[in-house]
Amino acid sequence: MNIIVIGGSAAGPKAAARARRINPKAEITIIQKEPHLSMASCGYPYYVGGFFDDRNQLISTPTGVVRDPAFFMKAKGITALTQTEATEIDTKNQVVTATSLEDGSVRQFPYDRLIIATGARPKMPPIPGITLEGITTLQSLKDADYLRAIRDQRSIRKAVVVGGGLIGVETAEALHLAGIEVVIVEMLPHILSFLNPQLASLVEQHLRSKGADVILDNGVQEFLGDSNKLRAVKLSNGTELSAELAVIAVGVQPNVDLARRAGIRIGDLGGIVVDQYMKTSIKNVFAVGDCIEVHNRLTGKPVLAPYGDLANLQGRVAGEHAATETAKANQPLPSFPGTVQTGICKVFDFIAGSTGLTFDNAKAAGFNPICVVASGPDKPGFMKGLPLISYMVADRDSRRILGFQCVGTGDVSKQVAQAAVAIQGGLTVDDMTNLDLPYAPPFSLAIDNGIGVSHVLQNKMNNLFTGICAEELYNRVQAQEELFILDVRGPDEFEQMRLGIGERLIPLGALRNRLSELPQDKNSEIITFCKISLRGYEAARILQGEGYTNIKVLEGGILAWPYCREK
Amino acid sequence: MNIIVIGGSAAGPKAAARARRINPKAEITIIQKEPHLSMASCGYPYYVGGFFDDRNQLISTPTGVVRDPAFFMKAKGITALTQTEATEIDTKNQVVTATSLEDGSVRQFPYDRLIIATGARPKMPPIPGITLEGITTLQSLKDADYLRAIRDQRSIRKAVVVGGGLIGVETAEALHLAGIEVVIVEMLPHILSFLNPQLASLVEQHLRSKGADVILDNGVQEFLGDSNKLRAVKLSNGTELSAELAVIAVGVQPNVDLARRAGIRIGDLGGIVVDQYMKTSIKNVFAVGDCIEVHNRLTGKPVLAPYGDLANLQGRVAGEHAATETAKANQPLPSFPGTVQTGICKVFDFIAGSTGLTFDNAKAAGFNPICVVASGPDKPGFMKGLPLISYMVADRDSRRILGFQCVGTGDVSKQVAQAAVAIQGGLTVDDMTNLDLPYAPPFSLAIDNGIGVSHVLQNKMNNLFTGICAEELYNRVQAQEELFILDVRGPDEFEQMRLGIGERLIPLGALRNRLSELPQDKNSEIITFCKISLRGYEAARILQGEGYTNIKVLEGGILAWPYCREK
Repeated sequence: MNIIVIGGSAAGPKAAARARRINPKAEITIIQKEPHLSMASCGYPYYVGGFFDDRNQLISTPTGVVRDPAFFMKAKGITALTQTEATEIDTKNQVVTATSLEDGSVRQFPYDRLIIATGARPKMPPIPGITLEGITTLQSLKDADYLRAIRDQRSIRKAVVVGGGLIGVETAEALHLAGIEVVIVEMLPHILSFLNPQLASLVEQHLRSKGADVILDNGVQEFLGDSNKLRAVKLSNGTELSAELAVIAVGVQPNVDLARRAGIRIGDLGGIVVDQYMKTSIKNVFAVGDCIEVHNRLTGKPVLAPYGDLANLQGRVAGEHAATETAKANQPLPSFPGTVQTGICKVFDFIAGSTGLTFDNAKAAGFNPICVVASGPDKPGFMKGLPLISYMVADRDSRRILGFQCVGTGDVSKQVAQAAVAIQGGLTVDDMTNLDLPYAPPFSLAIDNGIGVSHVLQNKMNNLFTGICAEELYNRVQAQEELFILDVRGPDEFEQMRLGIGERLIPLGALRNRLSELPQDKNSEIITFCKISLRGYEAARILQGEGYTNIKVLEGGILAWPYCREK
Repeated sequence: MNIIVIGGSAAGPKAAARARRINPKAEITIIQKEPHLSMASCGYPYYVGGFFDDRNQLISTPTGVVRDPAFFMKAKGITALTQTEATEIDTKNQVVTATSLEDGSVRQFPYDRLIIATGARPKMPPIPGITLEGITTLQSLKDADYLRAIRDQRSIRKAVVVGGGLIGVETAEALHLAGIEVVIVEMLPHILSFLNPQLASLVEQHLRSKGADVILDNGVQEFLGDSNKLRAVKLSNGTELSAELAVIAVGVQPNVDLARRAGIRIGDLGGIVVDQYMKTSIKNVFAVGDCIEVHNRLTGKPVLAPYGDLANLQGRVAGEHAATETAKANQPLPSFPGTVQTGICKVFDFIAGSTGLTFDNAKAAGFNPICVVASGPDKPGFMKGLPLISYMVADRDSRRILGFQCVGTGDVSKQVAQAAVAIQGGLTVDDMTNLDLPYAPPFSLAIDNGIGVSHVLQNKMNNLFTGICAEELYNRVQAQEELFILDVRGPDEFEQMRLGIGERLIPLGALRNRLSELPQDKNSEIITFCKISLRGYEAARILQGEGYTNIKVLEGGILAWPYCREK
């Protein structure tokens, strides 16, 4: 059996390796356009940022063996042809034509099974001046080498990162760590567009506090150069940012030209269409990785999900199917169920993670969503707990959890991981309120932060409180609406920091005795809060018990407030 | 409505606080025997070990307010009576009798709803000399004060911890950090008896490497004293360990005397029997926390599960039910589904965590289990990934995940948390192989470690390899059985460290060309391994492809080998 794999970055080699383990006798060939194989491309920003210095670690096994064609042959029994470009797929005769980029020679590769893993390429917007020297992406190992050399030579002072998505933010941190003054320019009103805007604002605040500037709602009009070298970036609003380096990070698009020419079905989003076995529309042809469209498990719709982890999982499934001569009856056929679009990124000391749907996405998908923002530490204070600000979305009807996001300096990774499993396991908010999770003070609160968020959302769903989000409160304060805003923290806390939006301080412990200081009309709107709005919630319950009918709790409290706070 | 809560440590105050939020008008009283309230008792070992110095943090809110009766009254509107012991429950007339431990006065408290949260007390085995000065437990704040004073005064040189469970191990670390030479004495063949023995051995190795000694399979025969002060601990095998301090940590037993006298049903394990609403056998009486028996969600049987996190979740459910006058029709009644016995503990640089069932427990519960040990780093090498050694149990028939354990210096907490959710969500091994989890190099591998373990278990379930566990291999080597043991790592790795059990080195990359060095009888038993047994697995697949019929892979490889290794 001949198995041909086109693409040697992540999904392709994984599919080839899995095929080998399933079928020790198959002939397996990887056709790879680039000079390297199995590059840990998600590691490029960390190489550029100086987290490690040995570039070979990006293309080596954990024990330090470079994953070159000799390694693939000896360790895996797989022929890997680098600098070789597949130029045609004849799906009728089952033959791939490829050209050596070294000597121009053309070869034909007959296949019984073909796996397409052609990946994606960075989008390059047609902006005047985009070909100037000093403008790059961070997609290939060559790009990483280029940026790392800039770090090592300390040759650049100012850079602009165009695009505030995952890669843009990771790149900005890397350049900042390389001693470069960085500005992120984002066309949308927020960076990390998968995040709830409030959480995104908190990340933006953190970036600015670290000295990386963020310009929102603004595009690049032109790159300005001197003698073909980048000198400045001109924004849509006319601002000129001087910069010797610009990194374009406005997303990627699937590489599907080869597949399209072969008559393989391409979806509306521009990716190859596959089923749960990673089979394309053409017999014996599979596709995996960044070049495909992936099934969203929550909406049922296709999405582009160019993530290295999914590429590996897809590769494993495709490799097994491709290498299996006849269906095995006694065990479930491996299939790939799709994505809930889980992602995470490091932003200096902050971490931002997301899984599932936002409120808006859930609504668009036909759910009846409800959401909440909640905050708190990841561990007890005596174990130096760090803050987490979370956002949870559920369906009011089924009560299923649909989405979860978390930002902060605490253990975001665990929170997002456990929520991702909860979503994929179909857990309801009520299931989550009673999860049995690993608790000890060095690792979590007695009530784990994620469980705590589900408590807050359950309380909201069960009408124990009405929430108001930071944005609504802020806008109403800006509009000079008459509001009674009640901070129920202690006097010391109030002295240290406050929102500065005309709030009144009555500490929770004094509230029952100072009800006379509140508006006496029981229908008055009163907004309560504290540092994380737990005491704010208790205050709301007290006031409701006193007959007040229009109490709202500022969700997430001061920790989640994304606007200026007074010292 | 009168709500009486007996017990003021964890579950009781949580129930009272939840009752208050549900019912702002109820009269709520906590009757607490000890002088303090809401003590963070899980934090005691970390206070003793010097992770923090301000003891008030154990009894304060995150903002530093001590949770004393004044706090409970002002902030929560709850009457908290400390140093007050409930001595009788009249369930017919719904009255609790309590005695002040300060002045001996007796009072009666009528209730509409009663919540019993009397906790558990340390087991004190009837060993001669157990009342000597210098013998303590670490259960109360007084115990913590006593041990912390020893740390601060540097007054003790040698200590014995009796019992190698969670508390024993945490206490041993705390004493070690206090500059005390520590020996853990455990009656069973392993510490942390909830762990798979191989994983427990790895923790024992780590403890010894840190200078804390571990004596297994041995009990205490007698505590020996001079002038009523502990001088030495005499073990069952006659060994005398000199020690000025002994901490007894052999488990706890539910405090149920009061409930038993009141005619409330006590289960076979000695805990109060409750339903999913935390209701006891007597009307209007609830029970929560360490004094109850908890439903195991996997076996359907009751267990004792004295954990602070579960106490809080139970308290929340009981508080809501107790405070609700009439059932609300429109929302699900809160209920507590039980435990999967998730736990975690820090052991110096190691972390040990567990959730669900072991192979033996699963078998005893009527499942058809299969398990695997697997190891690997938590992050890429270039991000300084740390090792994790994991153990996964599944049911062969339903393919559901039944148990997961993990030890190592890596991010055990996240692995156990996500596996705990997977188990509670009813995920199969196949579901787990395709989870969409948060991936970025600072946080995980492209194939998350836990997903990787599920790949290994799926491979084993689908007969892609046959495993052999370290203990079986070790015993067969000790019995001088004829075995062909094949290390397929590189020569450099072999030079650095090896098992030293007569293994032969043929690096994976050379294996296809050196088949002649293997036993030529294709039915020969050959055991393959590498550092984590991924290459060991690939070697097994190669040999199976060559017609070998009896190849076994050493599960978890060298990382999971719990015996001596040669330099």
